[in-house]
Amino acid sequence: MAIYLDNAATTFPKPESVYRAIDFTFRNLGVSPGRGSYQFSLEAGHLVLDVRETVAEFFGIEDASRVVFYANATEAINVALFGLLQPGDRVITSTIEHNAVSRPLHALARHGVELIRVSPDADGRIPPEAIREAACRAAGPIRMVVLSHCSNVTGVVQPIEEIGRWCRSEGIVFMVDAAQSAGVLPIDVETMGIDLLAVPGHKCLLGPPGTAILYVGPELHLKPLLWGGTGGNSMSPLMPDALPERLESGTLNTPALAGLLAGIEFVSRTGLQQIHLHKTSLLKRLLRGLHNLPGIRCYPHAGAQHGGGVLSFNVEGRDPAEIGFLLDDVYGICVRTGLHCAPDAHRSIGTLPSGTIRVSPGVFNTDKDIDALLGALNDMLGNRRRVGAGCRNHRTPFFP
Amino acid sequence: MAIYLDNAATTFPKPESVYRAIDFTFRNLGVSPGRGSYQFSLEAGHLVLDVRETVAEFFGIEDASRVVFYANATEAINVALFGLLQPGDRVITSTIEHNAVSRPLHALARHGVELIRVSPDADGRIPPEAIREAACRAAGPIRMVVLSHCSNVTGVVQPIEEIGRWCRSEGIVFMVDAAQSAGVLPIDVETMGIDLLAVPGHKCLLGPPGTAILYVGPELHLKPLLWGGTGGNSMSPLMPDALPERLESGTLNTPALAGLLAGIEFVSRTGLQQIHLHKTSLLKRLLRGLHNLPGIRCYPHAGAQHGGGVLSFNVEGRDPAEIGFLLDDVYGICVRTGLHCAPDAHRSIGTLPSGTIRVSPGVFNTDKDIDALLGALNDMLGNRRRVGAGCRNHRTPFFP
Repeated sequence: MAIYLDNAATTFPKPESVYRAIDFTFRNLGVSPGRGSYQFSLEAGHLVLDVRETVAEFFGIEDASRVVFYANATEAINVALFGLLQPGDRVITSTIEHNAVSRPLHALARHGVELIRVSPDADGRIPPEAIREAACRAAGPIRMVVLSHCSNVTGVVQPIEEIGRWCRSEGIVFMVDAAQSAGVLPIDVETMGIDLLAVPGHKCLLGPPGTAILYVGPELHLKPLLWGGTGGNSMSPLMPDALPERLESGTLNTPALAGLLAGIEFVSRTGLQQIHLHKTSLLKRLLRGLHNLPGIRCYPHAGAQHGGGVLSFNVEGRDPAEIGFLLDDVYGICVRTGLHCAPDAHRSIGTLPSGTIRVSPGVFNTDKDIDALLGALNDMLGNRRRVGAGCRNHRTPFFP
Repeated sequence: MAIYLDNAATTFPKPESVYRAIDFTFRNLGVSPGRGSYQFSLEAGHLVLDVRETVAEFFGIEDASRVVFYANATEAINVALFGLLQPGDRVITSTIEHNAVSRPLHALARHGVELIRVSPDADGRIPPEAIREAACRAAGPIRMVVLSHCSNVTGVVQPIEEIGRWCRSEGIVFMVDAAQSAGVLPIDVETMGIDLLAVPGHKCLLGPPGTAILYVGPELHLKPLLWGGTGGNSMSPLMPDALPERLESGTLNTPALAGLLAGIEFVSRTGLQQIHLHKTSLLKRLLRGLHNLPGIRCYPHAGAQHGGGVLSFNVEGRDPAEIGFLLDDVYGICVRTGLHCAPDAHRSIGTLPSGTIRVSPGVFNTDKDIDALLGALNDMLGNRRRVGAGCRNHRTPFFP
């Protein structure tokens, strides 16, 4: 079996309970939730409500009706940004966002939203004072600050609690893209002052693809981006005012949401602290090993805090794509290379246009997996003679 | 086990191959397709391409790259309508559309899109000549005609081939919402002159929730509605020009798409004609039975062609919700009552505000299911004395 170290793209494998929850729900309760008035549909509706309440509890959200479900975090982010921002609004963001944030912002900028981009410091961290200063220098009031909690390129975690508290004190909407952090780091929308939180279900929450969450704070009334049937208030040509229906059109994916519930339950049982410790311990092992190899450069630097469980590095004089290809083809190790849909983050660490080699272990990876990666890199870099000579193809096909 | 007759909401159960395809893919290939360059991700990408090609073949689409995947048909319809229409555009639609079509159109109308709504005739059919006349009477050229292929309330099938040919001859974009027809009636975008086709995966294509298709004709260049990462062209702040990436942001749901593939394969193996025959035969049996019951009214009338496998009726002097509740609670039969997210269709047949009782059998329903429904209605209506007296609760819980 191959060694999968691309959990920042999607976590794999999932806990057994996630696979089972989806299959069981799909086979036994695979109807449209809350659409029919028969018991079967009501049961599906109750299940969806259970997921909403579990999500709410997990993120310290008081009112579960403000948890809205989407197919992926990109959709959740689009709904939030296009639903809130108007021409003339001023937004502070960073220069290291994923395209899921930076592209909708770019589209909004073409319609009169003003963007102010704050750069990270040498440790990859967006300093709260830089945001405050940007707000002071701005020509007028700031409507929103939008930031990723953890960079999907460097794994550096942002001080969102401090930034969120300041936003709240200033009456600025604070939006957090928690794509890499939810399920690894504690997130509490109240203590962190988060008004909009976008979370994919299929990453560290260990749910399936096809699930994502948007939390919409109590003060916010977003314009719908997607219009359609909601199973209630059908008579009106407008979307209903109440959440989640206002922002949730079309048939929900009940089996996938059951899988998300099982994923969150697994994370809660295991404990965020335990998961975080496990991932950072694997990355520390990796960093120690990389230190002994020639020509390695970590980003933003080896001493930075990669607290999100993601590490990017390069090998001097080698294309990251080549290293990634060899790791996969010769050693059966899956890492992600290139730009990771975050060109701005690569611009900030100077790795355009080739990007980096990104390693993101998951809860089921072990020291052995890291040692296998280090062994492979050692084969390739430490003793070049051995590559292609003594090295056998360790890769086992996924479909034997 | 309950008798499920709400397949117009979502088909249930699915073929065994669909459940298995999803579980197998999720367990063995649950990575982000086309995001990584490792074999595992490429295999997932190949699978997604297989689904795209199968969909293309199924609908007579020449270029599979113009098949775009979404989480549900509502999303697909929103992407098409908001992606194409501009202020000043003139659109012909009908007075019997689902909210998935009428609500985005209403939102566009508030931004300067002119809507012209054509009513059905007494048989529930939108006459092509009515559309041509509406175009003649319009103050200027028509940009788009958008229609559902089959009403989700009456089951009446529209003459989309004739309308599509006329649209093509006039250079008008023709968009079809095939929510109720795909997987029951043959659809060929070329011979039917369809430029935009929206299809849910979880209805008659027998795939899972979380899947839907938008076909975008070769002449059309839609504005993206959702902006984000696409796994390629990452450097640009804009969405790529090429399809499907331009309109497909964020992580795709590979396991669900594998399920959709299995669903389409099941439909193809079974044969559309066979499926259509089966459903219409069940509805004919139902109509014959209803004819013998007192106070039944079918919509638009009992003699109409309910070719889409959906039938709406009411019982004189009784609320449809009450009938639906009793069918479920006492007899374990799941039908849908109310407005079915299509208030305009109910306005056209005079069933506002309570709606109708809607019966929509699926491929796995049998004559016995229809007879059980008729028996239950007979209990309730034919011999009122027996209701609540001799009648036992036949319902078996879904989670025993």
